[in-house]
Amino acid sequence: MSAAPPCPQVSAFEWVPDFARGNVRDLRVRWACEEIGRPYETVLLDATHPRGDDYTRWQPFGQVPAYRDQALEMFESGAILLYLGQDEPALLPTEPQARWQAVSWLVAGLNSVEPYLGSLVDMRLFHADQPWAEDAFATLRPGAERKLARLAEALGDREWLAGRFSAADIIMVTVLKIAVDLDLLAAHPTLAAYHARGTARPAFGRALQAQLDDFTDEPPSR
Amino acid sequence: MSAAPPCPQVSAFEWVPDFARGNVRDLRVRWACEEIGRPYETVLLDATHPRGDDYTRWQPFGQVPAYRDQALEMFESGAILLYLGQDEPALLPTEPQARWQAVSWLVAGLNSVEPYLGSLVDMRLFHADQPWAEDAFATLRPGAERKLARLAEALGDREWLAGRFSAADIIMVTVLKIAVDLDLLAAHPTLAAYHARGTARPAFGRALQAQLDDFTDEPPSR
Repeated sequence: MSAAPPCPQVSAFEWVPDFARGNVRDLRVRWACEEIGRPYETVLLDATHPRGDDYTRWQPFGQVPAYRDQALEMFESGAILLYLGQDEPALLPTEPQARWQAVSWLVAGLNSVEPYLGSLVDMRLFHADQPWAEDAFATLRPGAERKLARLAEALGDREWLAGRFSAADIIMVTVLKIAVDLDLLAAHPTLAAYHARGTARPAFGRALQAQLDDFTDEPPSR
Repeated sequence: MSAAPPCPQVSAFEWVPDFARGNVRDLRVRWACEEIGRPYETVLLDATHPRGDDYTRWQPFGQVPAYRDQALEMFESGAILLYLGQDEPALLPTEPQARWQAVSWLVAGLNSVEPYLGSLVDMRLFHADQPWAEDAFATLRPGAERKLARLAEALGDREWLAGRFSAADIIMVTVLKIAVDLDLLAAHPTLAAYHARGTARPAFGRALQAQLDDFTDEPPSR
């Protein structure tokens, strides 16, 4: 009897401020692993200091998550989900139209929705000390709202973005969490219900708990 | 003898202002098609009026490009490149580590680089009338510069991001065009050379010319 192969590794932070807990993007990979019953172990990093060269060779931007298993090393949550979904219909449907709609929506979450919400977070959270931050927020807000309106229209009364639940929903539900935090989702009851449907999945619950459990109470002192 | 199958269709705009010519994202799909010798035809849309329901069923955000062939309909340039690259080593290497590095870099271009440059474009181009636009530009600029510095470090003296040329380079070279336009690339000679190497490819030249040829001189009058 041979030993079980080593678990895939996912990088995450050992501590982040309260506002970031439940939002760090390793959550997406944890969620995907939970949906397909794939065990993983975490490599915990100090978010309060620059990452070293070892890590930037794995993740060039010093961000989380990065991923490695016996076959390869890679990075970017969206890319890792595509990799995990290759042969897993629970993440990517096998029928071509459904599969590539799922990939389309996964990329749309990353490139057509998240950046607009991210710009608002920048203003609210990271540049709040600037005298123009609220004006900039108000100016950028309609752009983000238009994206949410389009998304709501496209989702309609469907349960998930591409037929059955897919990796696209892991991306979009976690992207929409930004809209929840910014109080922009209440205007779209169907999107709020979609977000709630995603976060009600047992696999999401396990992934969130695992991320929260990995955090220490206090930042590392080094 | 049966007729040739109909060409894949890619959506594009029939007219855009000068600053957008050569930057609209159908260029990425045209470039990918040219790299693999796949003919395509364009479906030209009026960028100056809201797209109709027919189009939003194809592209939910009303953006270009969208793509269809005999097998399926899909959208988002990054997703379309992944689709076109499925069985095309000229776009996605077949060896797993190289392939998934290419996918990692493709997603990084879309989610870890483009949004930071896009925020600067917003301030410079679309919110320039705001009294705080230049302050906001100056505040956001270091974030974009950090991403470019990381990218330059990761690229090092390599020719392309994931071994040989791949779809990741189509995304990153077109993303870096934003940095060229913002005059942020001169600080990184290796990235400037990488951008020049990408745009010197014959397939890029043909794709750019095809996009420019499709534009009318004057905006549509409807």
